[in-house]
Amino acid sequence: MKAVYPGRFDPVTYGHLDVIKRARDIFSGVIVLCVEEPEKNVIFEAKERVEMLKEVTAGLSSVEVISFSGLLVDWLAKNKIKVVVRGLRMFCDFEYEFQMALTNKRLYPEAETVFLMTDEEHFYYSSSIVKELARFGRCPKGFVPRPVERRLKEKYGFS
Amino acid sequence: MKAVYPGRFDPVTYGHLDVIKRARDIFSGVIVLCVEEPEKNVIFEAKERVEMLKEVTAGLSSVEVISFSGLLVDWLAKNKIKVVVRGLRMFCDFEYEFQMALTNKRLYPEAETVFLMTDEEHFYYSSSIVKELARFGRCPKGFVPRPVERRLKEKYGFS
Amino acid sequence: MKAVYPGRFDPVTYGHLDVIKRARDIFSGVIVLCVEEPEKNVIFEAKERVEMLKEVTAGLSSVEVISFSGLLVDWLAKNKIKVVVRGLRMFCDFEYEFQMALTNKRLYPEAETVFLMTDEEHFYYSSSIVKELARFGRCPKGFVPRPVERRLKEKYGFS
Amino acid sequence: MKAVYPGRFDPVTYGHLDVIKRARDIFSGVIVLCVEEPEKNVIFEAKERVEMLKEVTAGLSSVEVISFSGLLVDWLAKNKIKVVVRGLRMFCDFEYEFQMALTNKRLYPEAETVFLMTDEEHFYYSSSIVKELARFGRCPKGFVPRPVERRLKEKYGFS
Amino acid sequence: MKAVYPGRFDPVTYGHLDVIKRARDIFSGVIVLCVEEPEKNVIFEAKERVEMLKEVTAGLSSVEVISFSGLLVDWLAKNKIKVVVRGLRMFCDFEYEFQMALTNKRLYPEAETVFLMTDEEHFYYSSSIVKELARFGRCPKGFVPRPVERRLKEKYGFS
Amino acid sequence: MKAVYPGRFDPVTYGHLDVIKRARDIFSGVIVLCVEEPEKNVIFEAKERVEMLKEVTAGLSSVEVISFSGLLVDWLAKNKIKVVVRGLRMFCDFEYEFQMALTNKRLYPEAETVFLMTDEEHFYYSSSIVKELARFGRCPKGFVPRPVERRLKEKYGFS
Repeated sequence: MKAVYPGRFDPVTYGHLDVIKRARDIFSGVIVLCVEEPEKNVIFEAKERVEMLKEVTAGLSSVEVISFSGLLVDWLAKNKIKVVVRGLRMFCDFEYEFQMALTNKRLYPEAETVFLMTDEEHFYYSSSIVKELARFGRCPKGFVPRPVERRLKEKYGFS
Repeated sequence: MKAVYPGRFDPVTYGHLDVIKRARDIFSGVIVLCVEEPEKNVIFEAKERVEMLKEVTAGLSSVEVISFSGLLVDWLAKNKIKVVVRGLRMFCDFEYEFQMALTNKRLYPEAETVFLMTDEEHFYYSSSIVKELARFGRCPKGFVPRPVERRLKEKYGFS
Repeated sequence: MKAVYPGRFDPVTYGHLDVIKRARDIFSGVIVLCVEEPEKNVIFEAKERVEMLKEVTAGLSSVEVISFSGLLVDWLAKNKIKVVVRGLRMFCDFEYEFQMALTNKRLYPEAETVFLMTDEEHFYYSSSIVKELARFGRCPKGFVPRPVERRLKEKYGFS
Repeated sequence: MKAVYPGRFDPVTYGHLDVIKRARDIFSGVIVLCVEEPEKNVIFEAKERVEMLKEVTAGLSSVEVISFSGLLVDWLAKNKIKVVVRGLRMFCDFEYEFQMALTNKRLYPEAETVFLMTDEEHFYYSSSIVKELARFGRCPKGFVPRPVERRLKEKYGFS
Repeated sequence: MKAVYPGRFDPVTYGHLDVIKRARDIFSGVIVLCVEEPEKNVIFEAKERVEMLKEVTAGLSSVEVISFSGLLVDWLAKNKIKVVVRGLRMFCDFEYEFQMALTNKRLYPEAETVFLMTDEEHFYYSSSIVKELARFGRCPKGFVPRPVERRLKEKYGFS
Repeated sequence: MKAVYPGRFDPVTYGHLDVIKRARDIFSGVIVLCVEEPEKNVIFEAKERVEMLKEVTAGLSSVEVISFSGLLVDWLAKNKIKVVVRGLRMFCDFEYEFQMALTNKRLYPEAETVFLMTDEEHFYYSSSIVKELARFGRCPKGFVPRPVERRLKEKYGFS
């Protein structure tokens, strides 16, 4: 059974990568669905976010990266995928997660949201922290994979 | 890939049954692991709890019920199962769940805890409510499957 | 004793309607106070939100709909109403609710905030979900009353 | 409309008294329902708890104190009361409260749980704190009304 | 050992002042670090916020007010300060606080975040409430010190 | 300024040790206060818990271990210590912590509770997990310091 892992990935962190790897160990394939919109407050455009996702998952078999715009349940129905993977971080927005999972279930009863826990080392931070660090000229070393680090450096000019 | 769904199931509710069915739709098989101890505060002995689980899952292929005593990670290692399923109810003890998931992961790195959401209709109650109702002579109709209802009636004498 | 039920109602959902009905069963009358501002991020203007509220409560005696701009406690003092009704959804912002209730109490000691629970069927979604669905061209059937569904269709053109 | 305020009141605190007064301002009468069991972990027997409740509400019109054993919804149905009042403290067990409210609603659809907020001064402590202080020989001055203070002194011998 | 208390203080409230006083009783000195940016959604400019902080802490020895722009950990490293004080309010954003504390620790391992509790009287409100009241022409009396009250009056013209 | 770190320490974990070390870096001395009672549910007697605390803090200057029975605020008043240190773990009982901090403040206004965060590596587990592992014959390696590991081995006979 294939699973889909939707998100904005602005940018992809080690925490996301950890979830992708775990999902891959459980399911027969993982489709990383990079949600294009809303574009507001993003630091990378959808095209760049997809490129970085592809770079960091390049060595992982059974992982596919796709850009996406629309309503998740419509994508699920069209692609006959029913398992949605979400990573639980220590401080993620449980309420939003559960509300979406129940809503998706009502709109598309076949949908099943599966929550995985992020590794303890990556359990407490999110893309927002990475963005805040980068904006202040600080390299988010240890939070994001090398290809992402490199692009942040190009964008924000820190060494 | 097979998954294990551990719990005390004292008694099994429609909410548990919903999780079993969902897990079955995702994994190639589900082993319901009925934890024998601690026996304190239970209303049914382990033997009875297993019997009820077997009755209510009788018609479901790929579902197995096993009685179990010990540490979950030891069972996982011995049986070469790595996926642990847990149901998220609205008011379940997230903190306990996450603490156990992280601890199991540290003790047995192959272990992967997968959280599924209980159906909205069964999302807010637990075995405790069922027990409280039964103790006051009230049939927990709609909370538990028929075979469990019957046994509660026998035990508590309500009509 | 009359009660007031303030909110933005953008748009009114079955969950809101459930709270209005419950409040009406407890109090001698319910004034639905449609807060005009802030206008940012709303999909319907205040005038339309009031119209929809009036349509969906048309058959309910002792329910009044009023448009409102200003500070709630000032309205309470001026209208000699002291009971404020708020609906608790599973994922509503408890902290904001409690902070407002304590602040209102300090500013106008006669004010009493009364929290009612939304029905289990409508317990997990909010106007935000309805808006998100509508924006993606999906009819939020089952989440909003018919007159709201019709207006969303006119606005977003889904069938 | 009359409301019922159920609890163990072991012992009644200023926080409880505050909720009783607020409920009295909203409803036509308040029945304080002192739940007899479970007796485990209580420091006062049901009879004493009721006596203290009667003493501290003696001057309040429209307030009645009744001892009670059984399931709340059965009492509600028998006495044709449908409003259940619960006080929200800062650290009360929201999840237990909401679970009970939804369960009561399912068992007795007429039941309506109404949550009031405890005054900010009494918003953070509970009977447990009072008990802990008394057990260590410390007078819980400011947490409980005088008649309760006096009885705790008699019981624990602090000055 | 000196401690730093960073924040936007837009405007400083009695709650902030309470934390400053408590920190001063524990540490040898307190540097109040008024974060200049982001400027969006503030009602006072950084310069004014610093002026108000200086006015309300004028009589307190060992308290210094400094304007600041950049990443906190860089400031800590440069000034050889390691203790960061944060006030816990009832409804503050624990998750954001903990995420920042863990991130700061990773970026600058000498950093130690120390959480103090705000006094029960000021435990439930924040600068946002003050701003909302002021915007609606209501004096936030009892929430902010006199010099802040005066400036809000000048700005919003309420009496 | 000296600080006190109260707890049951049954047994002391690496998480506790981390808090002791952090507190020592901030304050002029740390008194680890091992609370004797309640004895129920403990696996080590107070005497043993104190011995282990002394063993694991043997190399740390300015750290003292004391056994204690009674009400914390009385100890603080008698010993003229006002700073109470508490460690925040990911899943600790915030509500209990805050309730105790506010109550202590009311009983002994000089008392100041200071919350430190446990290191991310030890952020999610507690003594309970250690006990559960030991009871099932599993060495809690990596959770507790060596001297504690040794005693658990003696007690539970695992290798």
